[in-house]
Amino acid sequence: MDKIKVGIAGYGNLGRGVEAALAQCPDMSLEGVFTRRDPASLALSTPGVQAYRNDALRDFRGRLDVLILCGGSKDDLPAQGPALAAMFNTVDSFDTHARIPEYFDAVNRAAEPAGNTAIISVGWDPGLFSLNRLFGEAVLPQGETYTFWGKGLSQGHSDALRRVPGVKGAVQYTVPVPAAVERVRNGELPRLSTREKHTRECFVVLEEGADAAKVEHAIVTMPDYFADYDTTVTFISQDELHRDHAAMPHGGFVIRSGRTGGGHDQVVEYSLKLGSNPEFTASVLVAYARAAVRMNRMGLKGAQSVFDVPPGLLSPKSAAELRKELL
Amino acid sequence: MDKIKVGIAGYGNLGRGVEAALAQCPDMSLEGVFTRRDPASLALSTPGVQAYRNDALRDFRGRLDVLILCGGSKDDLPAQGPALAAMFNTVDSFDTHARIPEYFDAVNRAAEPAGNTAIISVGWDPGLFSLNRLFGEAVLPQGETYTFWGKGLSQGHSDALRRVPGVKGAVQYTVPVPAAVERVRNGELPRLSTREKHTRECFVVLEEGADAAKVEHAIVTMPDYFADYDTTVTFISQDELHRDHAAMPHGGFVIRSGRTGGGHDQVVEYSLKLGSNPEFTASVLVAYARAAVRMNRMGLKGAQSVFDVPPGLLSPKSAAELRKELL
Repeated sequence: MDKIKVGIAGYGNLGRGVEAALAQCPDMSLEGVFTRRDPASLALSTPGVQAYRNDALRDFRGRLDVLILCGGSKDDLPAQGPALAAMFNTVDSFDTHARIPEYFDAVNRAAEPAGNTAIISVGWDPGLFSLNRLFGEAVLPQGETYTFWGKGLSQGHSDALRRVPGVKGAVQYTVPVPAAVERVRNGELPRLSTREKHTRECFVVLEEGADAAKVEHAIVTMPDYFADYDTTVTFISQDELHRDHAAMPHGGFVIRSGRTGGGHDQVVEYSLKLGSNPEFTASVLVAYARAAVRMNRMGLKGAQSVFDVPPGLLSPKSAAELRKELL
Repeated sequence: MDKIKVGIAGYGNLGRGVEAALAQCPDMSLEGVFTRRDPASLALSTPGVQAYRNDALRDFRGRLDVLILCGGSKDDLPAQGPALAAMFNTVDSFDTHARIPEYFDAVNRAAEPAGNTAIISVGWDPGLFSLNRLFGEAVLPQGETYTFWGKGLSQGHSDALRRVPGVKGAVQYTVPVPAAVERVRNGELPRLSTREKHTRECFVVLEEGADAAKVEHAIVTMPDYFADYDTTVTFISQDELHRDHAAMPHGGFVIRSGRTGGGHDQVVEYSLKLGSNPEFTASVLVAYARAAVRMNRMGLKGAQSVFDVPPGLLSPKSAAELRKELL
């Protein structure tokens, strides 16, 4: 059988994760990496594969079965998503939850007339967590869904720390409050405030001469990011930041707690414990890239979300094999 | 919008659970319950709904959007599944894992020429657990999947106990071994024997005059069911059996532990803690009944498994609502 020909657009942490994930999939082959940087500056890990400037994508029309978009949701995808869905089947990890409907529409307007399939907002949240919110609600219509994130490194909150004057480097971990998770698991259906669900742990390297007390105050009072949470700030050295905080672990829980019609409590929990957030997200993208190609061949075109994808299409196995081995 | 018209075939624990689940779904209406017993002997809980003999199903052709089959996998479904899929869209909980491929084919041969959609093997295992085995393997191709069941009451093993001479009544609980679950959660990828994964706890009421030691020996040495496990037998009174063991709790875990291409460990866990096994299974059946009707209207006919069903079809919400609220 012909391998699925894949391109990667963007070569940051996520793009490198996709490259590593493709190496674990014998049914897929990486055809090229596309970047806005100087292609010669990229050190690809796949033998025989080249990097190209983004412009070169136009020459790859008809030579890729699917393009995996690894740009950011803020600056890259709003323009790239629709533009590239007009040329290729695509998969992306657009994760600005509030803007998903308009992004979906924009991608659909590009993908549909071109006859391409574009699966948006793939990863774990949005993505696998979204699916579990959906299954939970559909199966237990009377109940509550709780999403907890962490313990994990939050890129957005780490960026916010680095913008504080006096901060040289920093990382932020989001940590679910164990007592809150336990109450939800016990089926207590608690109402939880923002502060009751998560704490925020900041590890900060100060600029030389910066006032630690002032920096700490600026962090813990920062609206949206930290003011509504119990936030702790620990000052560390640049060496400690490199040594102890270079990994990007993450994870979390989606818990649906409900009561069925005969009056019994039922709790469904989905949890992730991720050694590397970008590598896991990349692995989800690759599975959905496989599905995008198959959906396109089945005539399912235009923008799609994980809610639209028959799960069997994620696996390299046939439907008959899946029924025999996994059902 | 017209409500989805539903019939229930079989009115044991599962059929009653489906009736209770439908009462939680304003988009669905129960049109009738079909039984092999005397319809007058059934005490339905839905106002205005009648019970009928199975024969009456033929008069309901064209009057039901979907029929939910609540018979057993051993004696009822092998014949009922294909016969009824020739007349209606159906959903069933066929759970004899080893015979799923032949059952699927038999149902497909009946459903496809009739233009019906029949979703087989719906529930939590097979069903939601199967989906999580699939997602785990598709996203983390290098790794191992572990399924643990319990703590929960096993109907099949309880039946086996009741067939032992000298046993008047009995229940059996399957219990995952906590140390094994922890090793899997920690990403140790252990090789676990049958005995290392689960223990079996039996609560037995003796017939008058029965020899307890003999009964216990017959149980713990029973091949397939108990011999390969650490099995405990506790003798109780008939009153205790009624008082303490009437509920049907169950649950379990599907854990996928894998390593992504960059060398990081990733663990995905799905777990259920069910106050009532039949009520939860029934709730899953009802969500998939909704999907069966929609798939049929979309032209997706013949036998299907949970692997074939786009998850969004399980929810009463539109695709746009789902993207806005749950993605």
